[in-house]
Amino acid sequence: MKFRAAKGTRDFYPDAMRLRTWLTDAWRRVSLRNGFEEYDGPIFEHLELYTTKSGDEIASQLFDLEDRGGRRLAIRPEMTPTLGRMVNARAQSLPRPIKWFSVPRLCRAERPQKGRLREFFQWNIDIVGVDDVLADAESILVAVDFLREVGLGPEDAVVRINSRRLVAAVLADLRVPPDRMDKAYALLDKAGKIPRDALQAMWKEAFGDAVPFDAIEPLLGVEGLDHLHEAIRGAKGGWAAAERELPAIEALFEKLDSFGITEYCNFDMAIVRGLAYYTGVVYEVFDRGQAHRAIGGGGRYDNLLRDLGGPAMPGVGFGVGDVVITDVLTEAGKLPVLKGELDVYVIAADAELQPRALELVAQLRRGGWSTDFSYRAQSVGKLLRAASDRGARRAVIVGQETRDENLVTIKDLTTGQQTRRDWAAFVAAPLAAGDEGDEQARRSL
Amino acid sequence: MKFRAAKGTRDFYPDAMRLRTWLTDAWRRVSLRNGFEEYDGPIFEHLELYTTKSGDEIASQLFDLEDRGGRRLAIRPEMTPTLGRMVNARAQSLPRPIKWFSVPRLCRAERPQKGRLREFFQWNIDIVGVDDVLADAESILVAVDFLREVGLGPEDAVVRINSRRLVAAVLADLRVPPDRMDKAYALLDKAGKIPRDALQAMWKEAFGDAVPFDAIEPLLGVEGLDHLHEAIRGAKGGWAAAERELPAIEALFEKLDSFGITEYCNFDMAIVRGLAYYTGVVYEVFDRGQAHRAIGGGGRYDNLLRDLGGPAMPGVGFGVGDVVITDVLTEAGKLPVLKGELDVYVIAADAELQPRALELVAQLRRGGWSTDFSYRAQSVGKLLRAASDRGARRAVIVGQETRDENLVTIKDLTTGQQTRRDWAAFVAAPLAAGDEGDEQARRSL
Repeated sequence: MKFRAAKGTRDFYPDAMRLRTWLTDAWRRVSLRNGFEEYDGPIFEHLELYTTKSGDEIASQLFDLEDRGGRRLAIRPEMTPTLGRMVNARAQSLPRPIKWFSVPRLCRAERPQKGRLREFFQWNIDIVGVDDVLADAESILVAVDFLREVGLGPEDAVVRINSRRLVAAVLADLRVPPDRMDKAYALLDKAGKIPRDALQAMWKEAFGDAVPFDAIEPLLGVEGLDHLHEAIRGAKGGWAAAERELPAIEALFEKLDSFGITEYCNFDMAIVRGLAYYTGVVYEVFDRGQAHRAIGGGGRYDNLLRDLGGPAMPGVGFGVGDVVITDVLTEAGKLPVLKGELDVYVIAADAELQPRALELVAQLRRGGWSTDFSYRAQSVGKLLRAASDRGARRAVIVGQETRDENLVTIKDLTTGQQTRRDWAAFVAAPLAAGDEGDEQARRSL
Repeated sequence: MKFRAAKGTRDFYPDAMRLRTWLTDAWRRVSLRNGFEEYDGPIFEHLELYTTKSGDEIASQLFDLEDRGGRRLAIRPEMTPTLGRMVNARAQSLPRPIKWFSVPRLCRAERPQKGRLREFFQWNIDIVGVDDVLADAESILVAVDFLREVGLGPEDAVVRINSRRLVAAVLADLRVPPDRMDKAYALLDKAGKIPRDALQAMWKEAFGDAVPFDAIEPLLGVEGLDHLHEAIRGAKGGWAAAERELPAIEALFEKLDSFGITEYCNFDMAIVRGLAYYTGVVYEVFDRGQAHRAIGGGGRYDNLLRDLGGPAMPGVGFGVGDVVITDVLTEAGKLPVLKGELDVYVIAADAELQPRALELVAQLRRGGWSTDFSYRAQSVGKLLRAASDRGARRAVIVGQETRDENLVTIKDLTTGQQTRRDWAAFVAAPLAAGDEGDEQARRSL
């Protein structure tokens, strides 16, 4: 009877946990400085919250369960439905705009593979109550602010931006029926993920010869605003509806320019996103080398809150998972090396002095200093090595001089310098250098 | 179609989330300064991990599910089995002692009531690989260090301490068969939670007249080491096995004395804990007024790792949930009032200046300053009020003087003082007071 972690999940031993905390701290820092407030919801929701509007792909990946009362529940596979539910519940009283972020743990019952696990963490930011394109632009700014924060420059990563209104206009021009748009989006989202001939076969199965794949395929290659203009001109009026969407796209890129982030951004008609609820601007962040799946993505969802039973309220937001970004940063050599840290390691020179050493440990910890000690009585030499192995800044020895004069012997483990100080003075400022006074700002952990 | 949160779960709107973060940050700070490293595992595990050793009560409260491969899983109802599994998987390579902490989200399908929800957060600390009573004492020190950290003094909270070895000895002396000990612990754990006559009836049902409840009941009233000595003397040799456990209890209290925390600690024979895997010292933390359920509890589990398929390895640890401690702190008026914070609110004096204002927003955020702005063009007066409502330290106006001289107008929203500064100088140190230079340590968020 030996137990293992469930398939597609991860154990976070301290080394891995330090990296996860480094990443989630970066997400929180960036969110807060961009004016977002943190929220969270439960790990599971009523099943229907997801089967209603997220689309078939998500619905097929749910971990569902029942509570004792027979209610059908599911572990959250994404955060936006919870956000919608929470905003709807207080739609009358929440001050607008609502700028919220979250770092939920999510689960999807899909086949574990590179960049995809059954359990992962996802940074979400959302702006609700604003239909101005400025909110779309700001959400992209936040994504770019994060890329910069973790050291990814415009040569490393790109935000590929499109608009579902534009895609819908082109598809309408190409005679895709309005009630088949969701299907078309779901298929177009697979471009770049599956071979082109497989996509062609799926398209044919869904749309027959009424909308030939050959008419659709060129869309996927339109990159950059210049190319888009060219494509519209080339269609000679055939893309009339699409042309009417151009000013909105151009306005978005103007805002991105004001924010100083156009070097990270590119128009790209191949981006449509898999989730069903997007209605406007959509985007995905990729490594420039395109060696990985999308680092993150998002867009505008102006009908979701109404569809979940609330008032009509526009929204825009994105998510960035922890798996792909970690792969990208690892490959780019940009993950930090993080070690355990300790301020003080306390050593009793002999077993009789252990009670005094424990007293010192408790006093230092209470003062906010990270402090450790050995459970085993060992020689001072061995314990100094243990202190070093533990990454301690100072070792302090409680010895005969403590018994006689209430002094402690301090060894600075970076410089090797050894000094003696009064017990109380040491407790007040254990990291103070040598014998230079005892004043030192209390370090906040 | 209006969705609600699942029964027994909570939504964390920003106000509630700030409090949750305040509490979990305190847990992390206290853990780190006591020399513990953070770890985490998956939200669900193989079902058998819990049905094996946690005991019937936990097993009856599992949220179980199946993955696509038909594997039986359960959302974690407690953290210790995951800890055991993870330690076992690397038992040969992990440096000892293992001092780990975690702040998992846990779920139990029980009836929601005061102090109990179906989803909650629980601080866990564990020391694995040490059988010295010093580890038991240190785990209690960490609990007390937390109580102090959140402002609960020895007049507010108490750690009630017992030993299952002592209880087992007394029960053996009273002729409870060895294979019924778990049942006896589970029943004794209900004392204080259910009426005495209900407990008596359950005891009679389990043990008949072989072990009369009247012989057991006095145990539950033994409080304090003096009282324990008295009880042993009073039994006139009938508690011989119990007497042999006394030195271990006394050694524990000596260590607690060295740590300077005996004012928080009391021996209490009524504490046995509900979980099946405890083998030695057990303890629970309560508010002194006993108006609430236990704030937390823990103990020694020397067989758990072996029972989960690993090597024999002793362990000790505790858990503190977020629900009861929040109730206790609320009642004691010790929860902080936390508001959203913002460094700078950027205002465009007219619509034409919006691009410059957005440029300033992006530059400030990139510099690490929390910055916000309005999506709507409004009068400067209205926007200054919005800045104030948002809790901003500074409002900065991009106006004619920006166009003409690249200056910005800064309003200190605490003092009301208004100054003008050069754009670049302001971006470098937006919180610098008035016109006193621009040097200022970059604030870490």
